[in-house]
Amino acid sequence: MTFEIKERDAAGRLCKFTTKHGVVTTPNLLPVINPNKMIITPKEMKKRLNIEILITNSYIIYKDVKLRKQALEQGVHKLIDFSGSIMTDSGTFQNYVYGDVNLDPLEIVRFQRDISSDIGTILDIFGTPSQTKEEAEQGVKETITRAKKSITEKGDMLLACTIQGSIYPDLRERCAQQLSALDADFFPIGGVVPLMENQRYSDVVRCILAAKQGLDPSKPVHLFGAGHPLIFSLAVALGCDFFDSSAYVKYANDGRMMFQWGTEKFDELTELPCCCPVCSKYTVSELKNLDIMERTLQLALHNLYVSFAEIKTIRTAVTGGWLWELVEQRASANPSLNDALRVLREPKHLHWLEHYEPTSKKSALFYTSPQTIHRPTIYRYHTRLFTRYEPMSKTTVVFPEGTKPYSMFYSREIINILKKKNVNFVADSHIGPIPFELDEMYPLAQSVFPEIIDQETRENAQQVVERFLKNKRVIRWDEHTTIEEEKPLKQNINLDVRRISAVADMQFGRGASKALLNGEITIIKSKRTGKIRNVICDGSHVISMRANDGLFTLKLDGGRRLHKGLKYPLLRVVATDDAEPFIKEGKSVFGKFVKDCDSDLRPFDECLIVNENDTLLAVGRMLLNRVEMLAFRHGMAVKTRESIK
Amino acid sequence: MTFEIKERDAAGRLCKFTTKHGVVTTPNLLPVINPNKMIITPKEMKKRLNIEILITNSYIIYKDVKLRKQALEQGVHKLIDFSGSIMTDSGTFQNYVYGDVNLDPLEIVRFQRDISSDIGTILDIFGTPSQTKEEAEQGVKETITRAKKSITEKGDMLLACTIQGSIYPDLRERCAQQLSALDADFFPIGGVVPLMENQRYSDVVRCILAAKQGLDPSKPVHLFGAGHPLIFSLAVALGCDFFDSSAYVKYANDGRMMFQWGTEKFDELTELPCCCPVCSKYTVSELKNLDIMERTLQLALHNLYVSFAEIKTIRTAVTGGWLWELVEQRASANPSLNDALRVLREPKHLHWLEHYEPTSKKSALFYTSPQTIHRPTIYRYHTRLFTRYEPMSKTTVVFPEGTKPYSMFYSREIINILKKKNVNFVADSHIGPIPFELDEMYPLAQSVFPEIIDQETRENAQQVVERFLKNKRVIRWDEHTTIEEEKPLKQNINLDVRRISAVADMQFGRGASKALLNGEITIIKSKRTGKIRNVICDGSHVISMRANDGLFTLKLDGGRRLHKGLKYPLLRVVATDDAEPFIKEGKSVFGKFVKDCDSDLRPFDECLIVNENDTLLAVGRMLLNRVEMLAFRHGMAVKTRESIK
Repeated sequence: MTFEIKERDAAGRLCKFTTKHGVVTTPNLLPVINPNKMIITPKEMKKRLNIEILITNSYIIYKDVKLRKQALEQGVHKLIDFSGSIMTDSGTFQNYVYGDVNLDPLEIVRFQRDISSDIGTILDIFGTPSQTKEEAEQGVKETITRAKKSITEKGDMLLACTIQGSIYPDLRERCAQQLSALDADFFPIGGVVPLMENQRYSDVVRCILAAKQGLDPSKPVHLFGAGHPLIFSLAVALGCDFFDSSAYVKYANDGRMMFQWGTEKFDELTELPCCCPVCSKYTVSELKNLDIMERTLQLALHNLYVSFAEIKTIRTAVTGGWLWELVEQRASANPSLNDALRVLREPKHLHWLEHYEPTSKKSALFYTSPQTIHRPTIYRYHTRLFTRYEPMSKTTVVFPEGTKPYSMFYSREIINILKKKNVNFVADSHIGPIPFELDEMYPLAQSVFPEIIDQETRENAQQVVERFLKNKRVIRWDEHTTIEEEKPLKQNINLDVRRISAVADMQFGRGASKALLNGEITIIKSKRTGKIRNVICDGSHVISMRANDGLFTLKLDGGRRLHKGLKYPLLRVVATDDAEPFIKEGKSVFGKFVKDCDSDLRPFDECLIVNENDTLLAVGRMLLNRVEMLAFRHGMAVKTRESIK
Repeated sequence: MTFEIKERDAAGRLCKFTTKHGVVTTPNLLPVINPNKMIITPKEMKKRLNIEILITNSYIIYKDVKLRKQALEQGVHKLIDFSGSIMTDSGTFQNYVYGDVNLDPLEIVRFQRDISSDIGTILDIFGTPSQTKEEAEQGVKETITRAKKSITEKGDMLLACTIQGSIYPDLRERCAQQLSALDADFFPIGGVVPLMENQRYSDVVRCILAAKQGLDPSKPVHLFGAGHPLIFSLAVALGCDFFDSSAYVKYANDGRMMFQWGTEKFDELTELPCCCPVCSKYTVSELKNLDIMERTLQLALHNLYVSFAEIKTIRTAVTGGWLWELVEQRASANPSLNDALRVLREPKHLHWLEHYEPTSKKSALFYTSPQTIHRPTIYRYHTRLFTRYEPMSKTTVVFPEGTKPYSMFYSREIINILKKKNVNFVADSHIGPIPFELDEMYPLAQSVFPEIIDQETRENAQQVVERFLKNKRVIRWDEHTTIEEEKPLKQNINLDVRRISAVADMQFGRGASKALLNGEITIIKSKRTGKIRNVICDGSHVISMRANDGLFTLKLDGGRRLHKGLKYPLLRVVATDDAEPFIKEGKSVFGKFVKDCDSDLRPFDECLIVNENDTLLAVGRMLLNRVEMLAFRHGMAVKTRESIK
């Protein structure tokens, strides 16, 4: 098995996952196939929806003498006539629904292996929401014991070890940690069906976050039994890679159609509010006139089309950098999902999410709801503002709230006055305080807010502004303001130098500007836009400012200066000695060659690549964060930009 | 032409519109057909998307000698090979884009008539957003002059008279009023394209609202040039019936794909986030490999599928009563659209919207955004609470904010205590104050809010609670509260009677309970749910409480009491004398037989049907509001429930 991150956004990822039967793109949805009752055959699904992977139930096959024999003789792929990847479930859910299924936990794992399942699943203990903590703990203990034993039987089958722990986050996290320490390949998050059924999405979110926080990040994660597209985007944003859907057929049997915003009863519709091939082929009355079997089939197909459209929309959002926007849009459709978003504001979770959040995106940050201001990107901006940004004067001039959080605040004339006075100046914006030096930096210039925002967002930003201004001499700007000239706290009085210094500190850490810009500075600007492009220090090109996100690309000479000026392990990715020759040739650094890494680095941050003796080898761009690069065996960890020959 | 309301929600409506070439359902979208360059033929659109109506440009036909000749000989339907309804545009937009088109305004109207257009359009003066008010006023004046002259030439063609007025609401409203006074059939709202192009959605909303507030409500309204599905739901909620789309092909030519959330560049997509027949047939790389003509065709088809899916979703929302929920979801995708929603909070607009808002819906009210609390339904609830509800005691006990705005606040035990004390008690909820008597009434019990709502919504509700409690003796409830027994302000100390009295006053107006329940009351409850069903007063069945919305259905005997107790014109719909025999037979009242109506009645309110001498004929349910029933010539105005034989 290989599992590689190709694109990422929020704590979500678009990966290539390889099984014996091919490559699967994640996030993905596994339609549930009942080998006894295939309303749509896997072949038909492949043809219509190009499915790459599905899930079927080994317990159902095992219990049926004929199916069992056939599966053992021909393998499960022949049995259901599908040549792609097949995951099998173990009977845990049947045990939960129908009571004791009387199954030997090891026997069912061996059976899955013997019928050549690509991914088999252990017979774990389903933890229910109503369990006491003691009961849940007992279940987790037994699940881990079974996982340990099952692993010895897995052969060359990938083994899914399910995380349980009922609604107790500490149990979930511990279960995830202990399963991660084993040789497991795939991690379903189990026991969420009863939560989903009662729309307890806040609890589902807590279960996912606890599991993810305990898990090896290099393994695929499957949210077991969550088949409604409504929840997909949020689950992906929290790091889930797979979903399964029996819902497509259950809902169809029940005459219900799934939509991205929820579910509608077919009988109550006078029109089909959808453009999938089913809804484009039939009118509602034509569908009503079909015989019940055929209609159910068509409803099931519709449900699959809608579910996969949502999966594809999510992948597009991950690639395009607008996954949070999508999540918030989806949450607006459902008050319980709205509540679930609030869980992400809790400090522990926000802190965790920030580690996975890319530092730069292809898309602007769009305001979507009162949740927007609580996104990890903005949390990071606030954090770095308090820990990395140094104002240039004792006095701070504050410009009133404007409609947009960037340069429009500052007229050329005002800037010139303030420049002469050597004072610090800051806009009071929807995102919080924006010192003028940072106003072209992601996500500030790249934000799109409404002109009038909700009060919660406003007050939130206001609190950050007040915290920022605390212990400062503050002047609130109006046209009659007079400002006295000050002696600057820092030497850089040139506005452009102030800008590059401040951005460098925000991006690379406090002290970076001193290390990077210690010398004679020349700034080269774009002729067309007048914006800063290249920064030359003592004749060597140290950094370039990117037009799209106002952040720096680090050049080798800049890397040398930062390496000299910032102490180990700051900004470093440490490559193993055997990788050194390849890196010097300009090759990128793969996960398995990473020995260590600065824990303050984030995905898409610029970094220094050093060897085990902290000798600088290259500069590059992080594709993974520290915990990921220490975990992932496959795929790139750092993209080398320039190496020392 | 006929135009009849079949379903309604917000100020939006689902209508049947009849032209010479058939019945068209609204809201609908008219694909723009360029007779010179049909990337998709009308026939193909009919086959694939079942389109009922389209729009083509008479100016383009007129300018081309060959097309002109053919159109005059065969008619426009043959010319473009489409047997459904055809609207023609006049060249106004070409005049705006390319400057003076040198066209005689009457000649082009006659031409449209002569080629048998179903709906022709006058050559109006396109008002641009940059115009001064004087310029805009001049344009409006000339537009009206041309409309007057054009009407004399229309023959049996329906004539669309476009509302202009740039960004000046008073001009737009006046233009709409003056055009309404003429014999025009169809009202495009013109001049919005430059606003749409700059995402000035707040201005678009102001234009629509001003036009609608000035217009004859019985005529179809077309938002000219708004072809992006993003805006459709909001425009429908404000009363627009038609859209046209040249965008489907313009965007396709430009390599852009429309989605319900916005637009994506095809070249930047690695996947097609959609399940329309095009996106289900092709992968992104297959589409990339098509030749440019074929690819553009497929993108155009996709754009049409997505646009019509949105139209069908909107119709489903109108029928299902969740149009506001849809509008708020769509607005979450775009900060400018978010700003546009805020325009609806302005008192003038909220007041207007409330007149069209149904009093009962098939769906619960779902919290979707901070805009939810500003919906017309909640505005109405607050208004009626202050003008119609009478508390039963001087003291009001307030229960703290709970998670849900209904009965869960009150345990049986507490209710019994408060009952004995004869005090009024109220819950402090997300929606504002909820007196216990009203807690099963729409939209209170039928609301779904998140457990934790945004601060803006909270404070808004809080303000209403405070206003409600002003000048009252208030006790905030906790478990240690002791309450002294009071002498009730009203006689009804029985809780059930308190409930039916309060709901009757809220629903029918202050004083209704006195008129309706003046006598010996018997209450019949549902055996299964224990809820109030039928109310008998002095032996006659006066009202029934509906299970779905907690509001009353008025029985004939109840109608008799209200007719006696409430003075003319309260609760009355006055039918013309010639309708009287039909109403007595139980037939419903059509718009053209309504002479007058109580202006406080709203769609789906219960009402009294009287003759011109205020003799009671029947009780019924309003389908239209007052201004609508005085305007609509076709379709039902009041559904008669029981009539006096």
